[in-house]
Amino acid sequence: MKAVVVEAKWDPRPDYPLSDWERETGKAITGSSIWRQPRFSIQEVPDPTPGPDEVVIRVKACGVCGSDLHFYETDPEGYILYPGLVKFPVIPGHEFSGEVVAVGKEVRDLRPGDMVTSEEMLWCGVCMPCRSGFFNHCTNLEELGFTVPGAMAEYVAVKAKYCWKINAIAERYGDVDKAYEAGSLVEPTSVAYNGIFVRAGGFRPGAYVAVFGAGPIGLAAIALSRAAGAGKVIAFDVSAPRREMARRMGADIALDPREVAPSEAVRELTRGEGADLFVEAAGAPTRTLPEMEKALAINGRIVVIGRAAERVPLYLETLQVRRGQIFGSQGHSGDAIFPSVIRMMAAGLIDMTRIITARYPLDRAVEAVERLSRRLDAKITIKPDLREVPQVEPAAATVA
Amino acid sequence: MKAVVVEAKWDPRPDYPLSDWERETGKAITGSSIWRQPRFSIQEVPDPTPGPDEVVIRVKACGVCGSDLHFYETDPEGYILYPGLVKFPVIPGHEFSGEVVAVGKEVRDLRPGDMVTSEEMLWCGVCMPCRSGFFNHCTNLEELGFTVPGAMAEYVAVKAKYCWKINAIAERYGDVDKAYEAGSLVEPTSVAYNGIFVRAGGFRPGAYVAVFGAGPIGLAAIALSRAAGAGKVIAFDVSAPRREMARRMGADIALDPREVAPSEAVRELTRGEGADLFVEAAGAPTRTLPEMEKALAINGRIVVIGRAAERVPLYLETLQVRRGQIFGSQGHSGDAIFPSVIRMMAAGLIDMTRIITARYPLDRAVEAVERLSRRLDAKITIKPDLREVPQVEPAAATVA
Amino acid sequence: MKAVVVEAKWDPRPDYPLSDWERETGKAITGSSIWRQPRFSIQEVPDPTPGPDEVVIRVKACGVCGSDLHFYETDPEGYILYPGLVKFPVIPGHEFSGEVVAVGKEVRDLRPGDMVTSEEMLWCGVCMPCRSGFFNHCTNLEELGFTVPGAMAEYVAVKAKYCWKINAIAERYGDVDKAYEAGSLVEPTSVAYNGIFVRAGGFRPGAYVAVFGAGPIGLAAIALSRAAGAGKVIAFDVSAPRREMARRMGADIALDPREVAPSEAVRELTRGEGADLFVEAAGAPTRTLPEMEKALAINGRIVVIGRAAERVPLYLETLQVRRGQIFGSQGHSGDAIFPSVIRMMAAGLIDMTRIITARYPLDRAVEAVERLSRRLDAKITIKPDLREVPQVEPAAATVA
Amino acid sequence: MKAVVVEAKWDPRPDYPLSDWERETGKAITGSSIWRQPRFSIQEVPDPTPGPDEVVIRVKACGVCGSDLHFYETDPEGYILYPGLVKFPVIPGHEFSGEVVAVGKEVRDLRPGDMVTSEEMLWCGVCMPCRSGFFNHCTNLEELGFTVPGAMAEYVAVKAKYCWKINAIAERYGDVDKAYEAGSLVEPTSVAYNGIFVRAGGFRPGAYVAVFGAGPIGLAAIALSRAAGAGKVIAFDVSAPRREMARRMGADIALDPREVAPSEAVRELTRGEGADLFVEAAGAPTRTLPEMEKALAINGRIVVIGRAAERVPLYLETLQVRRGQIFGSQGHSGDAIFPSVIRMMAAGLIDMTRIITARYPLDRAVEAVERLSRRLDAKITIKPDLREVPQVEPAAATVA
Repeated sequence: MKAVVVEAKWDPRPDYPLSDWERETGKAITGSSIWRQPRFSIQEVPDPTPGPDEVVIRVKACGVCGSDLHFYETDPEGYILYPGLVKFPVIPGHEFSGEVVAVGKEVRDLRPGDMVTSEEMLWCGVCMPCRSGFFNHCTNLEELGFTVPGAMAEYVAVKAKYCWKINAIAERYGDVDKAYEAGSLVEPTSVAYNGIFVRAGGFRPGAYVAVFGAGPIGLAAIALSRAAGAGKVIAFDVSAPRREMARRMGADIALDPREVAPSEAVRELTRGEGADLFVEAAGAPTRTLPEMEKALAINGRIVVIGRAAERVPLYLETLQVRRGQIFGSQGHSGDAIFPSVIRMMAAGLIDMTRIITARYPLDRAVEAVERLSRRLDAKITIKPDLREVPQVEPAAATVA
Repeated sequence: MKAVVVEAKWDPRPDYPLSDWERETGKAITGSSIWRQPRFSIQEVPDPTPGPDEVVIRVKACGVCGSDLHFYETDPEGYILYPGLVKFPVIPGHEFSGEVVAVGKEVRDLRPGDMVTSEEMLWCGVCMPCRSGFFNHCTNLEELGFTVPGAMAEYVAVKAKYCWKINAIAERYGDVDKAYEAGSLVEPTSVAYNGIFVRAGGFRPGAYVAVFGAGPIGLAAIALSRAAGAGKVIAFDVSAPRREMARRMGADIALDPREVAPSEAVRELTRGEGADLFVEAAGAPTRTLPEMEKALAINGRIVVIGRAAERVPLYLETLQVRRGQIFGSQGHSGDAIFPSVIRMMAAGLIDMTRIITARYPLDRAVEAVERLSRRLDAKITIKPDLREVPQVEPAAATVA
Repeated sequence: MKAVVVEAKWDPRPDYPLSDWERETGKAITGSSIWRQPRFSIQEVPDPTPGPDEVVIRVKACGVCGSDLHFYETDPEGYILYPGLVKFPVIPGHEFSGEVVAVGKEVRDLRPGDMVTSEEMLWCGVCMPCRSGFFNHCTNLEELGFTVPGAMAEYVAVKAKYCWKINAIAERYGDVDKAYEAGSLVEPTSVAYNGIFVRAGGFRPGAYVAVFGAGPIGLAAIALSRAAGAGKVIAFDVSAPRREMARRMGADIALDPREVAPSEAVRELTRGEGADLFVEAAGAPTRTLPEMEKALAINGRIVVIGRAAERVPLYLETLQVRRGQIFGSQGHSGDAIFPSVIRMMAAGLIDMTRIITARYPLDRAVEAVERLSRRLDAKITIKPDLREVPQVEPAAATVA
Repeated sequence: MKAVVVEAKWDPRPDYPLSDWERETGKAITGSSIWRQPRFSIQEVPDPTPGPDEVVIRVKACGVCGSDLHFYETDPEGYILYPGLVKFPVIPGHEFSGEVVAVGKEVRDLRPGDMVTSEEMLWCGVCMPCRSGFFNHCTNLEELGFTVPGAMAEYVAVKAKYCWKINAIAERYGDVDKAYEAGSLVEPTSVAYNGIFVRAGGFRPGAYVAVFGAGPIGLAAIALSRAAGAGKVIAFDVSAPRREMARRMGADIALDPREVAPSEAVRELTRGEGADLFVEAAGAPTRTLPEMEKALAINGRIVVIGRAAERVPLYLETLQVRRGQIFGSQGHSGDAIFPSVIRMMAAGLIDMTRIITARYPLDRAVEAVERLSRRLDAKITIKPDLREVPQVEPAAATVA
């Protein structure tokens, strides 16, 4: 089959303390400190076959994620920007959906023809966190498209336990193609769902929600908050097209944090009460958290979803005086998150396909990654069946 | 001022164990065992003046509640049907809104001209449950329109601590009159909100919700569940116009429980998974709970809001096998319930005025109560300023 | 190796609707409707070998559970009393501990010599409830000692993911033998822990707890409540020796529900406030729940752990007026329950070995089951290494 | 009556932005920026009389709190150290108990002779946070001993709604004098209870708890955690006598954070798993929080009770990777906190009187404050009825 393959050179930075585990497994814990000179190409690779507890999926849609882009982009010394766990060569791609075409002999609940999406976090089910239901904190984690072959390919093999049927979305839309696009967005939407509804415990309807960052996760947070009955959804992003997209996805208002102090805006828009829930989806906590502190409602919550390797100076007195709390969030597995997001799509409560601004055939996937690096798009989706040239939403081009 | 006054004869049933407290206070704990031969009339009574911590409100809209009706309706021996706490004579009416016209000297946050609604449960703030924040379980409870003068009148006096501003609803609607109507519905909507979001802990967006009973509380439960992101809202009621109203308020489907077994319907409509939340708002638990048991999702919840003085045979094994739980709910005070409902109205998330099917001027309030007894309406609202003859929604008449 | 083997005759009652699944698998969903004429014997069977994800454990202690007894006891027609899932012939025994003697090649965290106990519920990790962390509600459940070979044997094979190390208990006790006894009691203690702390959400320290039933689960509930800071622990049981044991395990008071109305006792002992948590561990909800209702504190909780195939007439108004809730509880897996119980034992917070009133060598295991049927004991433990004749606690004999 | 009176000079620092509210009310929001040259004296002042909703209490025991000390101690320019709300002259003292000697006419549940303690936070019951049950975040807060006359006096008047009966403690101890001492410690114990069990949601029995700071709040946190079933309680404090007291109150181990890195100690003592709950009671978050981060268990919690006006650089990634959360805690009112602590004392679960290291008669109260400034004691208690000279525990003197 055809697949995107990313290769890179194993070249640990001189000062990086390479661990025995990294040496033995060839997996980098901090990718950006080891892998250099990445090369993306379309290659012919063997078709996957299903293990006994696996299914093989014919990929129908696969989003290009920021982490894929960070395999592609490098620093001045040629090291990739992605700071997490990765082993090359790898087929990237983990925001995907497709049709089951083969099932292993132990698989009970899936059969060829089923429409599915899959989790990206390949939790073991055996370690202590997994046995407590904390799959997102599995100590033996593998990651689809990072340490095992991903979905920027014609086919991908995944264990059945990571797969979730999306047929109900197709029934809703009456449009299989659109359902596959929606299905490829279940994973990033689940990241936002986990943060808001699992980790932060959700909010009561009527609550004021403010979201910092309107990338795919922030946009999902906006759409979910709107659908879950937020009394007001306030978005902040420095990019004008992203603010426009934030409004499209349900924000009552979307502001540029360089033009207005977010804390002041939030206080004014909430009649002085502050936000009941703040979502950090910008990955810029040193700038966003201090603003959240200043406009936190009594009993307010802050959930941190965006990643940033930096220390954030917090004024904890605020948490005391305002009865506040901060939650860290990671992942999308467990807690019925995937099936809840699928139900929301199937109920028409959210339509995440609206964030897709460009579609590319698999043959031109490398071009898609390159395009994403131009920061014109909310989400670019690779569709192996797409026969035409890339479809780029004029709006995306225009607003950029 | 003019007011509706309900009088009745204190005539304890021979077998009723009258308590000393009842004898001393003249309040009946079980109204239907003591009060007989009720009489409703419009009377001229003194205008209220505000105590130091009170406001006087000029009533703009006041709903007729089922309990008001149960003051009016009697059993064959002439006893009122209302089984709760009541002392006659009384001005009834507790689902209301109006304009503040006078404030006591200790009142800080309200001033003349403010648009407000009020809680009906006059919690003391001093007893042990109140000091724990369980205002709905106050041991010194007084009730507006039951033991102290209510709002079927031109004016009513209420402590400021029970009042909540609704100006934001008027800003939303750009229509003061409609805002007052919405404001008069905050109380019953809060009863549903308390049941679903406080007592039962809410549901995660995408959850399946089934509501038994489509009276005002059930209709509020439907509207709230829709607004809070239910994946599906399934309603049951024996009355065709109420089912129609259920659909109007957001139910995906509304069924007659005499025509289809609710448990089978729920299982089918949820692809076999069952409902994540069942709301008992029919006051018929012997019929509804057994159906809920049979279609409870794993980790599902049942919240009982409707009242019924009867024992319900439950199969508790179901709660064990399905990881289920049952919550009892009473009241609407505390936990930021009123302001949350007001926010939802001000955000356009729910429009409860759609359940009003008839409007009456204060002069003809007795007629309104009489009309409610014909079971044609979802909600009848008394509007003191209404100059015309009663406005009855044709739909209400038609569907009946 | 030597093992206890239970055999019985597959003879479905004439009116029992045998399912295809039962016919195909030979597993009875309702054991008491299918299996007849049980026979217990000590047999020589092949030693188990570990599958790739399994360990083989040399059994050191194995409790005799009420369900084991219900394999042994029969009704007048010769059917076993056990009403749940079971397939014969089977080696019974699921409350056990032992030493790891062999490990499969995929096992990472265990090695020969480790002291372990194991869950009884063999959850698949793949079905929808498992993927949500609700392992106790696995739809593909196998049960150790019911559908797969159990621990009344010299050796037993179990998947590593069900095993938990108990070495810390041995460190605490400085007594390996006693640690194995404690380890064999982790499973029933976890059933109580799941009910109180997971399903019912626990209680705040100082809360009043009342436990109905002082069998092993009730005794564990008592010990756990005491250790977790209950302000008072009130126990009810009809058996005098069990009440004595209840006191030994930490009950402030243990009463005979035939001599005093439990609701009155609870109200009096709690200064009229009622119990904050009621634990149903008697399996007699028609008698216990009505008493709980009458003495439920405001915001009180009821957790149902004992099983009973009967409808219980509940007065749900009580849940409404008292802000009450009922939780059903099943199982012991997930939510870090096993390791929490182990930590409590290792910290000396509970000493469950105190409920063991008789110890038998494996050779005389059938005798142990027979003795349990005489209802003299709290817990009888089979210890394969025990060389002497049975050790019966004089106290147990005396109090009976 | 006799009372301690603190006077000071209103002399706002030149750079302090004095607010209109401060000018009008004479209350300083930031005491340390306004009040200078404090003077403590014993004076004769009028006896209090009860308002209609008040009781007058004859004080039996009153602890000297760190904030009292911060009225006494000054900076080089003579400003008091206390940074919070205060208005002089004032009678200080808010950790107290006593006997009701007079009750106002609206008081229902208290009568002369009752033994009581009282909350210090005089919440209004009317503002929005109060109406949501968040009494600790009252927007109209008055504080006993800060803005209204406190309990370092023979008598004090308090609203009945702030009072809680402690007779049950006396029944437990069979010693009225000791019960009053315990009663005077309910307030600081409640501060710790609020932090751990209300704000942080408590912990499951068996959890590992680490407490930073072994002043009265930290000592209460230790005692409460021990009583609530912590699997291990680890304490850190720089003072040797405080570490000794920490052990006496239930810590398994108490370490000097200058001698061992707390994060390493915690990891080692928890077998690498980390602490499930960290309590910041040292008021030194810049030093304690970074250590907590490094040894946080998966799903671990941090609760901040100690106050510090400083920004703390946090690595929020840790909260994400470890599924962690931080809660801010303030106050002790609401949520049945006081009665829960009283129940725990009455049940013998905690004995807070063990932290009292010196007792002074009221006449020598100023001496007591002076002694506290020498940092030799855990808690010094003023007892108006004490006839003898001060009683100082030899241990306290010794360990210092």
